Amino acid sequence: MQGLMMDHPLLISSIIDHAARYHGDTEIVSVNTTGGEHRTTYAQLRARALKLASALQKRGMEKSDRIATLAWNNHRHLELYFGISGSGLVCHTVNPRLHPDQLVYIMNHAQDRMLFFDKTFLPVVAAIRDRLPHTAHPVLMEAADDAVKAEHPWIEFYEDLIGEGDEDYAWPGDVDERDASSLCYTSGTTGNPKGVLYSHRSTLLHAMMSATPDVMDFSARDCLLPVVPMFHVNAWGTPYAAPLVGAKMVMPGPGLDGASLTRLFNQEKVTISAGVPTIWAGLLAHLEQAGEKLPHLTRTIVGGSACPPSMIAKFRDDYGVEVLHAWGMTEMSPLGSVNNLKNKHFELPEAEQRKIRESQGRPPFCVELGIFDDDDNQLPNDGKTQGNLYCRGPWILNEYFSGEGGSPLRKGWFPTGDVSTLDEDGFMTIRDRSKDIIKSGGEWISTVDLENLAVAHPDVAEAAVIAARHEKWDERPLLIVVPKPGRTIDEAALLGFYEDKVAKWWIPDAVKVVEQIPKGATGKILKTALRAEFGDALLSP
Amino acid sequence: MQGLMMDHPLLISSIIDHAARYHGDTEIVSVNTTGGEHRTTYAQLRARALKLASALQKRGMEKSDRIATLAWNNHRHLELYFGISGSGLVCHTVNPRLHPDQLVYIMNHAQDRMLFFDKTFLPVVAAIRDRLPHTAHPVLMEAADDAVKAEHPWIEFYEDLIGEGDEDYAWPGDVDERDASSLCYTSGTTGNPKGVLYSHRSTLLHAMMSATPDVMDFSARDCLLPVVPMFHVNAWGTPYAAPLVGAKMVMPGPGLDGASLTRLFNQEKVTISAGVPTIWAGLLAHLEQAGEKLPHLTRTIVGGSACPPSMIAKFRDDYGVEVLHAWGMTEMSPLGSVNNLKNKHFELPEAEQRKIRESQGRPPFCVELGIFDDDDNQLPNDGKTQGNLYCRGPWILNEYFSGEGGSPLRKGWFPTGDVSTLDEDGFMTIRDRSKDIIKSGGEWISTVDLENLAVAHPDVAEAAVIAARHEKWDERPLLIVVPKPGRTIDEAALLGFYEDKVAKWWIPDAVKVVEQIPKGATGKILKTALRAEFGDALLSP
Repeated sequence: MQGLMMDHPLLISSIIDHAARYHGDTEIVSVNTTGGEHRTTYAQLRARALKLASALQKRGMEKSDRIATLAWNNHRHLELYFGISGSGLVCHTVNPRLHPDQLVYIMNHAQDRMLFFDKTFLPVVAAIRDRLPHTAHPVLMEAADDAVKAEHPWIEFYEDLIGEGDEDYAWPGDVDERDASSLCYTSGTTGNPKGVLYSHRSTLLHAMMSATPDVMDFSARDCLLPVVPMFHVNAWGTPYAAPLVGAKMVMPGPGLDGASLTRLFNQEKVTISAGVPTIWAGLLAHLEQAGEKLPHLTRTIVGGSACPPSMIAKFRDDYGVEVLHAWGMTEMSPLGSVNNLKNKHFELPEAEQRKIRESQGRPPFCVELGIFDDDDNQLPNDGKTQGNLYCRGPWILNEYFSGEGGSPLRKGWFPTGDVSTLDEDGFMTIRDRSKDIIKSGGEWISTVDLENLAVAHPDVAEAAVIAARHEKWDERPLLIVVPKPGRTIDEAALLGFYEDKVAKWWIPDAVKVVEQIPKGATGKILKTALRAEFGDALLSP
Repeated sequence: MQGLMMDHPLLISSIIDHAARYHGDTEIVSVNTTGGEHRTTYAQLRARALKLASALQKRGMEKSDRIATLAWNNHRHLELYFGISGSGLVCHTVNPRLHPDQLVYIMNHAQDRMLFFDKTFLPVVAAIRDRLPHTAHPVLMEAADDAVKAEHPWIEFYEDLIGEGDEDYAWPGDVDERDASSLCYTSGTTGNPKGVLYSHRSTLLHAMMSATPDVMDFSARDCLLPVVPMFHVNAWGTPYAAPLVGAKMVMPGPGLDGASLTRLFNQEKVTISAGVPTIWAGLLAHLEQAGEKLPHLTRTIVGGSACPPSMIAKFRDDYGVEVLHAWGMTEMSPLGSVNNLKNKHFELPEAEQRKIRESQGRPPFCVELGIFDDDDNQLPNDGKTQGNLYCRGPWILNEYFSGEGGSPLRKGWFPTGDVSTLDEDGFMTIRDRSKDIIKSGGEWISTVDLENLAVAHPDVAEAAVIAARHEKWDERPLLIVVPKPGRTIDEAALLGFYEDKVAKWWIPDAVKVVEQIPKGATGKILKTALRAEFGDALLSP
C-alpha cells in the first residue's frame, strides 16, 4: 500500500523556482571574465535560465542531450546550470585546465551538442573546434562583439542566443527525478577520464543534506562564495544548496588569487566559502603580507585534498574562521564526510578536540562508509585499523557514463581508492590513496601523514612523499620538498623533525629538494610523475 | 536517459540505521509513564526496534498492516515508530485525548491489527477493546506485571513481546520509499476524523529539510525535547529529524506541566524544544512563579496555533529563548512554514524585525504556498491581500486514507482552510480559519488578530472571538474572555483597549465573560461550541 502524499518529483528546476519565488530579490554578485562586476537576483536568474532553455529548445536540443561548458564561476554559468538541467538536458561541465587532447576526448565521448565558453578559453576552443564533430554551436558567454566576430566568424554570442528565447517558456513536464541532469568527468590521473552522470534526484538529496548544520550549514542569512570551480564536481553542489535556502551568492570569476578573494570576501560580507587547500594557502599568504583580516567570514569548507593541521590552526587563531574539513569525490557528488564535532567532544580537552578536527569527519545521512581488506571483507571501525575505504548511498555513483570500465562496485559499495581508518562515531581519516600508500616490508606507511608533518617545518613550502623502490623493504618513503623562498633545506634536520612524531620506521629514507612539484588539472600532486622521476632514487646505482 | 547514481530508497529504517552506526552512544532519556527515567542509546534503540519488528512478523503482521499506538513520548514509542515502519508496517498513532467513540471509529476505520498502549490508557482500552474486531492483541507498553495480568487477563506485555523477537532480524528488502509508513487522523472538529497516510519518502524529505538551519536547525550538538506528542503529526516529525543528525533526545512522558518540563530542560541540558502555545503558557507561568531560568535552552518551535506576540517577547526578554514560530497541519507532515529572518531583515529597526517575527514565517524548500479567492483564482503576494491559503509539495496530502471525502485538492493544491496573507518573500500570516473569519458587511475581520490583542490585556487569561449573527452587518465580532485569577473584566475598558490598535469597525460589539473556553482534543479552541452558545448574542431578543 502506498502513502497518499503528493507525488512531486525532486527536480533542479524546483530549486530555482523556489529561490525566485521566496528569495526573489536576494543578490548574486558575479565577477566578469573581462573585468568588472555584475549584480543580479534569483528572480532575474530564473527568468534568464528559462529564456536560455527556450532558446536551446529552438536550436533543436532534445531531452538528455549533453551541453558542454568551459567556464568560470559567474552568473551566466549559473544560468546554464539551471537552464540546461531544468529543461531536461544534461549540463556537462568541462575542466578547462585539461590538455586540449583531453578536452577533445571528453567532449566527443560525451557527444556534446553545444559548447558554452568564457572568453579566457577562446584560444583553446578556436584550436580544437574542428575536432568536435558533435558540437554544432560554440557560444561565447558574452554580449555580441563585432571585433571578436570579425576574427572568429564561427562564434555565437550568449546574449544573442538568450534573446531568441521566449519570455513565457515553462519547464517541461516530462522530466523525471531519476533523469540525468549533469555530467562531470573525473580527472583520471591514469587512463582516459570517465564521466559521472548525476540525476536530479541525487543532486537534490545532496543539496538538501548539504544545507544541514553539521554539513555546510547554509541559511538565508548566509553569503556564499564558492572558490571551488563549477567545473569541479558542480562546485561541490553549492550552486544548488545556496538557492535552495536563499543564501546570497558571490561568484569570483577567474581571479582566485588572495588579493581578489580578500576584496570580495570583505566587500560582499561573505560568511562562508569553499575551496581546496592550495587556494587557501594563497589567501593566507596574502592576508599575512597585506595585514588584512576577514571580519565577516565565519567558516570555510576545505576539501579536494587533506587540509594540513597548520592551516586549520592559522584560520582559527589568526582570522577567527572555522575550517570545515570535508572529504569527497567526483563519484560522490562529492560529499562523503564533513568534520563537525558532537556534543560529547566539547567535554574533551582542547588538544583532543583539535585532533578530532584534523580527521576528514563523519558521513551525513545518505552516505555510508566502510573499510575493507583487499578481499572485500569489512574491517573493524576502531579508529586504528587501516583499510580500503568504500562508500554507498543515493548520491554515489553506480556506474560511469556509457558503462565505461564496467561496474566499479564491490559488493554494492563504491571503492574510493583511499586507505583510511574509521572510528565508532564514523570519523574517518584518510591515510593515503590506495595507489600511493607505501608498503614497506608488508606494513603500510601513510604518505599523507608524512606530508602533513613536512609542511609544518618552517623551511618547507610544499612536500610530497612517494613510495620509492627499495631492495630490502620493497618500498620506502622518499620525501620531496620545495623550500620556502629564501630558505635552504638541511636534510638531516628535516628528517630529524619526524622523530617522536611518527614511528621510527616511518621516517623517510632521503629528501629530494625541487623547485616545484608537478600538479594535475585540479591542483592535485601528480605522484605518478614524481615516481617516474624519483622512484629509483633509493636503489643502488 | 537516467542518471547513473545508486538507486537507494529513502526509508525510515535508514534513519535509525544511520543513528545507530554513527551516533550509537548518543543518549535518549525517557520519562516512564509509571515514574522514573529510562536511559538508552540509538544503538540500543535500533536493536530493540529490530527485535520488535521480528516479533510483529512472528505474530503474522503483513506488509502495510496498521498497528495502533496510544502512547506518550517515551522510548518504547520510539521503538514502535522505527520497528513498525522499518519493517514495512504502518504506525498508526492515535490521539488518546479523543472521546472513546472516536477512538473506536478511528481504529476500526484504519483496521488496526494490533494496539500498543501506555498504562495511563489502560482504563479506556479495557472499556473499548470489545468494540475493536480487527485488533487482536492489546499490548501494554510495560514489563510483565502479575497484578495487572490478574485483573486484565487479555493483556500482553511489551517486554514479553519484544523477547520473542530474533536478535539477528534484518529489515525486509521489499519496502519501497512510496510505501505507506504511518497514519495519523485529523482531529476533525466537524464530521468524522480522516486519516493522513504518510510515506517513507514524504517522511524522509520532511526530516531532511526539518534539520536545515532555517527550519528546525538540528545538529549532533543539540539535545531535543519534543513536548508536542508523538500522536500529534508524529511530534512534528522530530523523532525522525533528530536521529537523522544524531541529536540527543529527551522524551518527557506524561508530565507536561511547567515544573516537570523545567526540571528536564535543565537536568538534560536541552537546547531545543517544540510544542503548542498552551504548553508554553504553563511553562512560563511556572518559571515566573518559581523564579527559575532555562540556561541551556536556546530556541523552541511554537506551532499548532498562532503564538501570541507577548509570548515571543517573554521567551526572548526574560529567558533568552528564541521562538521559532511555525505553522503546519496534519495533512502537511506537518511543516508548512517557519519564521526565520533573512539577511536583509537584520538591517531593519528592531521593532520591524519583531513585527516580521510574529508572522507564521516562510515555506522551506519542498513547500509551495499560494492564496486564492473562493473561485480558485490566485491572488497577489503583496502582504496585504487576504485569501484562502493553499499549499503543495512532496510531503503534502494528496487524498485521505481510503479515499475518504473524495479528492480534497483544488487545481492540484491542498486547501488548508486558513485565510492568510503572503508577502514577496513568502512570509505568511494566518488571519483566520476560513470558517472562523468574520464577514461583516462583505469585509473580512480576523478573529485571530482580535484574540492576540485581547490576551495582551492585563485582566485577560484567555480569549476567543467568534462571528456572531447581526441584523445589519450579517456578522459582527463577539469577544469571549476568561479573566485572570483575581481580576474582573470591565467591558468598556477592554473594548477601549482595541482603539488605535485596529480599524474602528473591527472592534468587537460586546464582551462575554466565561469561566472556561471549550477546547478540542489537541487543545484548539472549539469555536463551533462557542458559536452554538453565543452566536445569537447580538440579535434582538
